[in-house]
Amino acid sequence: MLKARKIILDCDPGHDDAIALLMAAANPKIELVGVTTVAGNSTIEKTTLNAQKVCELAGIHVPIAQGASRPLVREQVTASSIHGESGLDGPSLPTPTKPLLEIDAVDFIIQTLSQSDEKITLVPVGPLTNIALAIRKEPKILDKIEEIVFMGGGRFGNWTPAAEFNIYVDAEAAQIVLDSGVPITMVGLDLTHQAIATKAIQQQIAQIDHKVARFVVELLEFFSETYKEVFGFEGAPIHDACCVAYCIDPDVFTTSHLRVDVETNGQFTYGMTVIDLHGVTKRAANVHVAMELNQDKFWSLMLDTLQNYR
Amino acid sequence: MLKARKIILDCDPGHDDAIALLMAAANPKIELVGVTTVAGNSTIEKTTLNAQKVCELAGIHVPIAQGASRPLVREQVTASSIHGESGLDGPSLPTPTKPLLEIDAVDFIIQTLSQSDEKITLVPVGPLTNIALAIRKEPKILDKIEEIVFMGGGRFGNWTPAAEFNIYVDAEAAQIVLDSGVPITMVGLDLTHQAIATKAIQQQIAQIDHKVARFVVELLEFFSETYKEVFGFEGAPIHDACCVAYCIDPDVFTTSHLRVDVETNGQFTYGMTVIDLHGVTKRAANVHVAMELNQDKFWSLMLDTLQNYR
Amino acid sequence: MLKARKIILDCDPGHDDAIALLMAAANPKIELVGVTTVAGNSTIEKTTLNAQKVCELAGIHVPIAQGASRPLVREQVTASSIHGESGLDGPSLPTPTKPLLEIDAVDFIIQTLSQSDEKITLVPVGPLTNIALAIRKEPKILDKIEEIVFMGGGRFGNWTPAAEFNIYVDAEAAQIVLDSGVPITMVGLDLTHQAIATKAIQQQIAQIDHKVARFVVELLEFFSETYKEVFGFEGAPIHDACCVAYCIDPDVFTTSHLRVDVETNGQFTYGMTVIDLHGVTKRAANVHVAMELNQDKFWSLMLDTLQNYR
Amino acid sequence: MLKARKIILDCDPGHDDAIALLMAAANPKIELVGVTTVAGNSTIEKTTLNAQKVCELAGIHVPIAQGASRPLVREQVTASSIHGESGLDGPSLPTPTKPLLEIDAVDFIIQTLSQSDEKITLVPVGPLTNIALAIRKEPKILDKIEEIVFMGGGRFGNWTPAAEFNIYVDAEAAQIVLDSGVPITMVGLDLTHQAIATKAIQQQIAQIDHKVARFVVELLEFFSETYKEVFGFEGAPIHDACCVAYCIDPDVFTTSHLRVDVETNGQFTYGMTVIDLHGVTKRAANVHVAMELNQDKFWSLMLDTLQNYR
Repeated sequence: MLKARKIILDCDPGHDDAIALLMAAANPKIELVGVTTVAGNSTIEKTTLNAQKVCELAGIHVPIAQGASRPLVREQVTASSIHGESGLDGPSLPTPTKPLLEIDAVDFIIQTLSQSDEKITLVPVGPLTNIALAIRKEPKILDKIEEIVFMGGGRFGNWTPAAEFNIYVDAEAAQIVLDSGVPITMVGLDLTHQAIATKAIQQQIAQIDHKVARFVVELLEFFSETYKEVFGFEGAPIHDACCVAYCIDPDVFTTSHLRVDVETNGQFTYGMTVIDLHGVTKRAANVHVAMELNQDKFWSLMLDTLQNYR
Repeated sequence: MLKARKIILDCDPGHDDAIALLMAAANPKIELVGVTTVAGNSTIEKTTLNAQKVCELAGIHVPIAQGASRPLVREQVTASSIHGESGLDGPSLPTPTKPLLEIDAVDFIIQTLSQSDEKITLVPVGPLTNIALAIRKEPKILDKIEEIVFMGGGRFGNWTPAAEFNIYVDAEAAQIVLDSGVPITMVGLDLTHQAIATKAIQQQIAQIDHKVARFVVELLEFFSETYKEVFGFEGAPIHDACCVAYCIDPDVFTTSHLRVDVETNGQFTYGMTVIDLHGVTKRAANVHVAMELNQDKFWSLMLDTLQNYR
Repeated sequence: MLKARKIILDCDPGHDDAIALLMAAANPKIELVGVTTVAGNSTIEKTTLNAQKVCELAGIHVPIAQGASRPLVREQVTASSIHGESGLDGPSLPTPTKPLLEIDAVDFIIQTLSQSDEKITLVPVGPLTNIALAIRKEPKILDKIEEIVFMGGGRFGNWTPAAEFNIYVDAEAAQIVLDSGVPITMVGLDLTHQAIATKAIQQQIAQIDHKVARFVVELLEFFSETYKEVFGFEGAPIHDACCVAYCIDPDVFTTSHLRVDVETNGQFTYGMTVIDLHGVTKRAANVHVAMELNQDKFWSLMLDTLQNYR
Repeated sequence: MLKARKIILDCDPGHDDAIALLMAAANPKIELVGVTTVAGNSTIEKTTLNAQKVCELAGIHVPIAQGASRPLVREQVTASSIHGESGLDGPSLPTPTKPLLEIDAVDFIIQTLSQSDEKITLVPVGPLTNIALAIRKEPKILDKIEEIVFMGGGRFGNWTPAAEFNIYVDAEAAQIVLDSGVPITMVGLDLTHQAIATKAIQQQIAQIDHKVARFVVELLEFFSETYKEVFGFEGAPIHDACCVAYCIDPDVFTTSHLRVDVETNGQFTYGMTVIDLHGVTKRAANVHVAMELNQDKFWSLMLDTLQNYR
């Protein structure tokens, strides 16, 4: 039997973060060794509480460590226009009963990697602040990182015309990660805008007779609403879940190995991931960029994984 | 009968510039009041000579004025990797017999607009240096500009991952033009990469029994070669011709009215046109961005226009 | 007998501009071949009218050409906090009776230089927009420029902590001038803050029994007032007059030949002149930077020149 | 009796760092609770070893923790041209016999501050990487910082025309520190270039009959040599010692409370500290900027402190 892939999920729930967390915890191909939180979609207090609540609701028993309360260099930005005031508006959620770890996210990442015999995959689906701090505080962990599979960036933006939210919030952290030299897979908007949870998808999930599935449907109802209002989309892209799906089965999307740089200077382009699709810079590739989603594989994988909660 | 649209073609021939010039001179819906040249694909001496040679070969009798020998602020960049050493490698061309205007391009543009009773459309298909200098030297001409239909920019780049060549060469000039307040249509790479002169198209042109058509075929043969080598394309996009086609028939492509800004600060994004597709900046639209080419209309229009040389 | 030095004074009067103009017109070592105006301290309409009024009052008969109404690339900034609403608040001035040239400043500069047998010195004491436009429109004039002696920049700023007003207003124009390759003398704040028209100086001027001297005193009274309010200075620096003094007698200040670059990207440093005092960049010197004012020579020269109006 | 001021010295020895360390350890007005090291003048391995060696030689018994091996965001830069290959060329030094702390500098700073009942002063005299990482990893320590007294910046540069070395090496870290909201004293080049250890000073130190004094003389001989070669100075500025002197006696120099920002975007000004001397930005002051050194107090204090080693 295949060994499960060890991952740390670094998240800022967030609706799609919540779905990513549910998938990571329920699929046998993944061993979720811990959840770390970061400020992003909402403040660190709210994203941490949301992570706890999701685990409480779904009966997920993993260590949770709270992380960075603000970006590395720039001022903080949050996305209440997308995720609501709580950062996870829509469903009602239980009060968490299990405490956070006493150490913070950066120390949890450093200690977990340092003490592990095997390499571990980091799956950051919010701003990359925790990962950047961990790398700079203890560069030796680089040897223990199997891969960094992050949600962020893309050939176009959503927070500005050029920049995706996660990278915009902490572009300096993103630059640190992209220049780190470890294997990196970037799951950007190009990919995640192919992963739209349409009404039809929502109905399939609704047919699973379990509170977790019902919770997911409630998440998607709220999230679809804001995506319709803000971007005119029919159905919400479940961005962060794509990273977890890829850790379960790398065939859920194709990738291209390309040079990617993060713009930290531009007046109109701060936080843009500049992807050298045609190799015009002649610089060495540093990122596996997610290109095309295999719709069938992805949604089957998601539905199958949610079935595991029954 | 409809009046012809008066245009000044500002170009840096260049293979696709040459085709744009041939089309502008031969279509009854356009009155080509003058040709101005600019450094870009090659040095100003070469682009000017190339413009003269194309006119000589095709028997085009219009005033030609030489323009800016370098960008407004930054150092000069040329594109011999794409257009060859002469800036128009491939076909052999006649020696020009008609002199240039004594005044330069900037004065020609200012005088022509100032003295005209009706508005005139400017069609810059190289770096925007001449247009920017004319606007800044004589701001009153803004009232006489019907529209600026320029080739440049787009949602992706060709000279760098983020920037198209014409804008990259003189981003400050582009910013001046985009902030000028006159009606602007931007024909960027999104559009022009839909206008690929495939082998099939080349064969259709070859069936026109005339030296101008043969010249166009030779241009396309060389240009397709470099596009294959540099970008891996099958067939070359005839970028600049799209602007002229639009002046002949605005239905050759659809446009969206959007906010577009030029990045002049970025480390990786200098010269990028930042297009606010989803209105996230809430800033007023300033550019009609070319979106989708009507293939049938475009190629019919081009073939019909070239027929006029017989 | 020594030949007079031919200069074109490019200015945006402005209190210290007015004094520079009076000095340039009255000293036999200078032949003032023309005055050009630029937007800066105030709008182009006001600075031009002010130049005309100063000439009217002092009986100065030189061609005046109106120039650029705004900076090359950036948005316009004016300095009414320093020069008042009219751009020359304080003295009352006569209505001009002589018309402006029909050609604009850029054409006047280009034509005058092109048609001159000898080289001419350009003395821009406002933003460098006109000079930059002239250089880019007709690069051949570079061979006819004896020297560019400009007021601007320095090792510290006045408009921002890092940038002096003239350079801040049009840093891209300044970069064009500094990279032009002609001999350049930069008279920055380091120098001009040594040229303070104190009460004692004002009294010496007041002893000259002539309306021009009285006008200068009135200028200095107003200018001293705003310098006291805004910067806490006792007495106003007559910045622009230092450039003219240098053209009359280069010994009025010492210079060092240094590398100077203009920052056009910085968040806090846009418009700063970066002066490589210790040669740490190892780049070739491009500017003679004014260092130390010879107080005796400078004030004698100024008082002697104003005496010539009697 | 007055209580000694608790400080953590964060350094990258470095000749002037070594003198700062010797002073901090020997003056009764200071309680040196720890030494942390950072990459800067040399690599982290070398600066740490140098800190250990200096403590070994002088019999200083304080905890030493190794810190960041590279800047937060940008590529590493070191200064072997100034401090030699070892980072402390010149004197011969003993092999250290005492081990480093097991925890790193960032954790040492966080733990020491968190566990202390009273506030502690941080004295970073190298790049600000450790301090920035500690602040971002555990923002609660901000309440425990008495003051940050750092060597860096100034109204002019030494590594580039605009930027001082420590800030240039990690401008993003400097921005984090300056925006932290704690009391900050900046000891920049303006101040430290007043603290020149001339031949006369060196002779006074040489008269102290002790190996530590002899070591200081050897440091100054080497350091004066490179300052003469690179900058043409007579005698070396002992930059870092000024910070320690200020902690012993704040009257060694005057300060002004001003707005200071760090430029992280500029093409020619990256790493510059932009000091708003005249309040033109109208922004709130955030830094006490060292202005004028009291020569007598400073050198007496230094000589007296070195006497304590006998």
